[in-house]
Amino acid sequence: MRREKTLDAVGERELIRLLMGAPYSDPAVLIGPGDDAAVVRPRPGREVVLKADAIVENVHFLPDSAPFWIGHKAAARVLSDFAAMGATPRHLLVSLAAPGRTPVSRVKGIYKGLRDLCEAFGVSVVGGETVTASELALHIFGAGELPRGRALTRSGAKPGDVVMVTGALGGSIRGKHLRFEPRVREGQWLSAGNWATAAIDVSDGLATDLFHLAEASGVHVDLDAASIPIASAARAMKTPRDPLRRALFDGEDFELIFTVRPRRVESFFHAWRERFDLRVTAIGLIGRGAGPICLHRGGQELVELTNGGYEHFSRNSASTT
Amino acid sequence: MRREKTLDAVGERELIRLLMGAPYSDPAVLIGPGDDAAVVRPRPGREVVLKADAIVENVHFLPDSAPFWIGHKAAARVLSDFAAMGATPRHLLVSLAAPGRTPVSRVKGIYKGLRDLCEAFGVSVVGGETVTASELALHIFGAGELPRGRALTRSGAKPGDVVMVTGALGGSIRGKHLRFEPRVREGQWLSAGNWATAAIDVSDGLATDLFHLAEASGVHVDLDAASIPIASAARAMKTPRDPLRRALFDGEDFELIFTVRPRRVESFFHAWRERFDLRVTAIGLIGRGAGPICLHRGGQELVELTNGGYEHFSRNSASTT
Repeated sequence: MRREKTLDAVGERELIRLLMGAPYSDPAVLIGPGDDAAVVRPRPGREVVLKADAIVENVHFLPDSAPFWIGHKAAARVLSDFAAMGATPRHLLVSLAAPGRTPVSRVKGIYKGLRDLCEAFGVSVVGGETVTASELALHIFGAGELPRGRALTRSGAKPGDVVMVTGALGGSIRGKHLRFEPRVREGQWLSAGNWATAAIDVSDGLATDLFHLAEASGVHVDLDAASIPIASAARAMKTPRDPLRRALFDGEDFELIFTVRPRRVESFFHAWRERFDLRVTAIGLIGRGAGPICLHRGGQELVELTNGGYEHFSRNSASTT
Repeated sequence: MRREKTLDAVGERELIRLLMGAPYSDPAVLIGPGDDAAVVRPRPGREVVLKADAIVENVHFLPDSAPFWIGHKAAARVLSDFAAMGATPRHLLVSLAAPGRTPVSRVKGIYKGLRDLCEAFGVSVVGGETVTASELALHIFGAGELPRGRALTRSGAKPGDVVMVTGALGGSIRGKHLRFEPRVREGQWLSAGNWATAAIDVSDGLATDLFHLAEASGVHVDLDAASIPIASAARAMKTPRDPLRRALFDGEDFELIFTVRPRRVESFFHAWRERFDLRVTAIGLIGRGAGPICLHRGGQELVELTNGGYEHFSRNSASTT
């Protein structure tokens, strides 16, 4: 068997050259990879949006995960945060930590997935760092922009607003957690049309992320169990969690949760369907006063959801009380 | 013995709250930590400078390194890259990878060092991520700005330019590699006064980083051995490397190397000494045509330096040939 070339065998600069590929024709990139830092030109009057995120082997992907989808996921997670701000991602920097024994082909596969996604969204990779480490990890930094004052924060939800979610939820572990499409265009559209009062993406699970939004807005949420769109992956899984629980608590769906003023709901649905094929569902209502997420079925209060879902460094598992 | 509280015992959100501390009064930070991304306002007409960098336990610091100085180093490395671009760092994002067993107090110490340095340079920490990992690592993302077209790149050195270096070199392993002061003000001053034709910071060692600058500029360098400022730490070390070799090949000095047009050298020295107490030394000349770094002593060619120094993923050790 031919032995694969590993990172040990190539220098850091050669590796970065291999990974960075052809220079960009992006006119906003004044100085790309290869100098002490990248220099880019913002469009006049825009605010700058910044985000850091990381994925680690055996936490966010497995040793046998396809390299292309590892890279895709690393970039898509950051793009999903831009989506949740209604922002346009423009530039990405990649900080790769990897053991010296890592095959170069694996790292190239990862960068291919990352760059292909970036290309699809008009994002330029303007910097790359590599460091020796005992396990593979990708730390991704994204910079982008927003027209002034148009950020979709978590804190703008108001009593009476309707809670919406894109796509369907649960069971992402069966593949979507690696291969999801970040809802960047949808987020930009929500911001541009001033449709959403607040937004967040589903990374820790619907119940947890919706609670983050409610907490930041100082409101509570009444959720309609029957309306929650359950992914076929969640229905297909034979595990202790029923499909509804999966839709509520499974993480890494990377759909958008957002809130719409009640008087705009009808025109929102009309405009959305003109523009996107993606499913969007009204799943609940914002209530006055800070409080928990309450799950209703048939108009009768069912349960209060605790701040469950998956949280790093926490041993508490997801639960309903 | 009282058992220390570890990351395992606190949730990710509580940890980030602990670490982020008080919100900023920086008016350029429109949305700080706590939402899906940070939003900042660039000054009109400025270019945006972006840089990612990482430090990993047992590579860039040791398990018994003081937490404060680990954090200081993580931020200072990135600030040093801004210095080498002549840019002003404005915002930092921190992606922390750590095992669940890490004491919270250690992580707090790290953030204290990081934030103190940022404060000294007017930099706001606008985002933080934490991920579970098997070893401690800090990936730092910096965003800053430059007046249009004023970047100090590596590629602007011209034949006849004088090569300068700040401070003294070698032996950083005795402490400076953790506790160094990034040359941000010096870099900004070099850019603002249009003093430097090219610049780079010393991270991999004088020989290696000067070679990067020469290669990017398509020139070669004649270096005067007697002029190279050797740090007392390098002289004090009893090791196989002599002090000059340490000054040439030891990494992580984080001084600035830059080039000055010959007709401006006299006024440069005058202006520098008016402005800074920091030592600056002319150590060589830029020669026409791409080529190696040649080390001269007493006007006689001595040796060609190979692209030595420390390079990640490379097993080649530093050498003179």
